[in-house]
Amino acid sequence: MQGEHSSKQYDMDLETIRSKVLLMGGLVENQFQDAVSSFKSGNIAQAEQVIKVDQDVNRLEVSLDDACSHLIVKRQPAANDLRTVMATIKVIIDLERIGDEATKIARSAKSITERGVTTINHYEIIRVMASSAGNMLHDALDAFARLDGKQAIQLIAKDEVVNHEFRSIMRNLITFMMEDPRTISCALDTLWVAKAIERIGDHAKNIAEYVIYIVEGKDIRHTDYVASQLEDRTTN
Amino acid sequence: MQGEHSSKQYDMDLETIRSKVLLMGGLVENQFQDAVSSFKSGNIAQAEQVIKVDQDVNRLEVSLDDACSHLIVKRQPAANDLRTVMATIKVIIDLERIGDEATKIARSAKSITERGVTTINHYEIIRVMASSAGNMLHDALDAFARLDGKQAIQLIAKDEVVNHEFRSIMRNLITFMMEDPRTISCALDTLWVAKAIERIGDHAKNIAEYVIYIVEGKDIRHTDYVASQLEDRTTN
Repeated sequence: MQGEHSSKQYDMDLETIRSKVLLMGGLVENQFQDAVSSFKSGNIAQAEQVIKVDQDVNRLEVSLDDACSHLIVKRQPAANDLRTVMATIKVIIDLERIGDEATKIARSAKSITERGVTTINHYEIIRVMASSAGNMLHDALDAFARLDGKQAIQLIAKDEVVNHEFRSIMRNLITFMMEDPRTISCALDTLWVAKAIERIGDHAKNIAEYVIYIVEGKDIRHTDYVASQLEDRTTN
Repeated sequence: MQGEHSSKQYDMDLETIRSKVLLMGGLVENQFQDAVSSFKSGNIAQAEQVIKVDQDVNRLEVSLDDACSHLIVKRQPAANDLRTVMATIKVIIDLERIGDEATKIARSAKSITERGVTTINHYEIIRVMASSAGNMLHDALDAFARLDGKQAIQLIAKDEVVNHEFRSIMRNLITFMMEDPRTISCALDTLWVAKAIERIGDHAKNIAEYVIYIVEGKDIRHTDYVASQLEDRTTN
């Protein structure tokens, strides 16, 4: 049913959407980096900028979502093409949520700075985890840009590392709080930041799963597909 | 372009999907109630059942998502009809996440029971908030079932109440922890439960926003649409 002309138009429209999604991805990646940086430095202006940028991210979500719906109605894509659009719609949702989590980190940065007394080395506690999740996010956007299923599989496996780091941070913070109740406020702010970083890892994993859905045509959510793929590579 | 036959088929297919989404909604609503109940009673078997049911919820997510894509490819809906399918796809995502949050509550219930010593009245602390969020979820599913935009608007306004209750719980728990460090483990479990409940309120709000999108054709995410609607009703 699709003529060559219509199919070409479809490809062009889809490419426009994809490049805007990558723009949105760049925005939330910067939001995350800046939020972590403000948590380190206590730079309130930087934290407030992260919170402000979230409005742009929200606007991009709504307009990109709308563009995807228009594409479907106008070009009536076949099953294969539709898969890419549907996955893109979900990537957009996850990117918006990453923006929300970055905003939470920025809020904690403000709160910890405004309280004035830091009773624990709050940035050092989350440093490694923030770097792991940042790498996951970067790789997820890269895998989406290049439609690289292998890279997507690799990064999904890293989510367990981030989750492990989160649990270890939680145990650390509990120890601090028990030893010295004066650390409780600061430790809780740090705990929320760690939680937000853990969620960003989850969202990066979701994006990678959508990349695999686009490339392989497999919905691998809630399956052990990644483990089996990694195993194949080790044994072969 | 759509013949009457095709349009009727579309309506029937959509109705099948909608009734399965409501089935999924019923499952996660029960998951949430049972999770809270196990947090109250310390019934580990009940908590484990909540965790087990989550696999059914996950399977429903994947199969319903697939059914929506098939519907679009097969029936090529016009803009108005597509809006309903797209919103339904997003409702499914939120329902699955509610299942995840209920599972987290069940895990905390297990953890607090297995530790054996409860140093605070953990259920009493979250009781009111759990009831508020449970009502929001119930109303969201009801609004989706009856496509009731007014009910959706009412319940979105309640999200602020749940958020307020969360902040008040957090302050309470901090006080407990500072006064007696032996409460810290128990207080943190309770804090995670409160956080999961707050997230369930957010997801119920999202579902209500999608109902409004279906009924009114307006994407009201990140806008003050609800406030303006409630104001209209007060002043008129």
